[in-house]
Amino acid sequence: MFSKAIVKYVKSLQVKKYRSQHQAFVVEGAKSVLELLQSDFEIQHLFVTESFRQEHAALLHKGFKYDIVTEKDLVAAGTFASNNAALAVASMRKLPHLTLQEKDFVIALDDIRDPGNLGTIIRIADWYGIEHVVCSESCADFYNPKVIAATMGSFTRINVHYVNLTEWLAQYTTKYKIYGASLAGENLHKMKLKPEGILVLGNEANGIRPEVAGQINQLIKIPAFGKAESLNVATATAIIIDNFKRNA
Amino acid sequence: MFSKAIVKYVKSLQVKKYRSQHQAFVVEGAKSVLELLQSDFEIQHLFVTESFRQEHAALLHKGFKYDIVTEKDLVAAGTFASNNAALAVASMRKLPHLTLQEKDFVIALDDIRDPGNLGTIIRIADWYGIEHVVCSESCADFYNPKVIAATMGSFTRINVHYVNLTEWLAQYTTKYKIYGASLAGENLHKMKLKPEGILVLGNEANGIRPEVAGQINQLIKIPAFGKAESLNVATATAIIIDNFKRNA
Repeated sequence: MFSKAIVKYVKSLQVKKYRSQHQAFVVEGAKSVLELLQSDFEIQHLFVTESFRQEHAALLHKGFKYDIVTEKDLVAAGTFASNNAALAVASMRKLPHLTLQEKDFVIALDDIRDPGNLGTIIRIADWYGIEHVVCSESCADFYNPKVIAATMGSFTRINVHYVNLTEWLAQYTTKYKIYGASLAGENLHKMKLKPEGILVLGNEANGIRPEVAGQINQLIKIPAFGKAESLNVATATAIIIDNFKRNA
Repeated sequence: MFSKAIVKYVKSLQVKKYRSQHQAFVVEGAKSVLELLQSDFEIQHLFVTESFRQEHAALLHKGFKYDIVTEKDLVAAGTFASNNAALAVASMRKLPHLTLQEKDFVIALDDIRDPGNLGTIIRIADWYGIEHVVCSESCADFYNPKVIAATMGSFTRINVHYVNLTEWLAQYTTKYKIYGASLAGENLHKMKLKPEGILVLGNEANGIRPEVAGQINQLIKIPAFGKAESLNVATATAIIIDNFKRNA
């Protein structure tokens, strides 16, 4: 059973300020919690329903401490409209400062505000084997429950770094390819793209900010065949990375 | 100003049953309403803020009848958390039964339940110049406000047809290429794909239903380079169509 104190603690972690203060975040739902249990994240609290416990007894026997709760408890403490499985509180992990190696290929996000978009991009990175996503400080928070949910478990595998993006890119601009997605870019269907360097995607409404665009040395675009003015930024990320990876 | 009766009517259109009864639907926000005003949809009611009216005076002068309302009115009547622009009620249009022509390329959706996914797929279709999306009857409703919003205006250009998908596909299965997205399919990076025929995508959790899969003559997959188990269905649609269109 949940104590009132725990519910209050879990709920407080919906707010970035309290996540930072406690260096902890919430993971909800069967898929995400199962991935968490198989990751190296440290788990502070684990709450499961009786049916989840029975279905995943073997995994839970690996030394996890947990409490049995009801679906109603999970919904009351978390952000999901329904959750018949599990909720966990995990400790944030500190990432070492990211320094690119010669053949690395990473995604950089400038001011991506929508948590669903950030989470979907992290899932796409995981599909395509891209380990690092670099975010401007104004991006949605990686530990936001909506981001975690949208990654569908990929939050356990992808390293998301928050940096001053202009400064971070500046150190690479002469030695690395820095690609930027832009409607003014070169048609990527006509290019020979090698998955090395940095791919920058910009804000949902305004694209890449000028100071960040100044670090980019190759603008690319997805050619349009119809009349839509734009694509969703996560959709665009997926298409562009597929074009990089298809020849890899 | 909104009358109580109008607010009640607009609100009723959030529910599919009342949309069907009145053969009408709601369009919210600047981008979507602007696209609506430039389409051939018949407009029953148009509500705009004073700032929207000033900004789009030339367009509104083309004979549109409208009422001036406040942002608060728009939020109260609609589904958006904020709306400083416009809301319209439009009449549904009747589409002729879709019969494929020889070189047509269309998307078929089997049991896509999430309105955001359906809307995003319609936007992707519009980007790639695909005019028709065929939906199983169990798909989210095209006229759902969340679908309309997610299309970012592309709802005005794409024809979305609801059919018994198994029966509809059956008439084409011997003469057309019917592609199905599946983790068990052929690697599409290794295929020469021509944008002709039908591309089928399945339910978010369960994929394509067996009776629909029975009509498919070519399974295809997006190759994975990392560890994510799957991609979001709208993301997958975009990547696959890009692979069809890159050689077109």
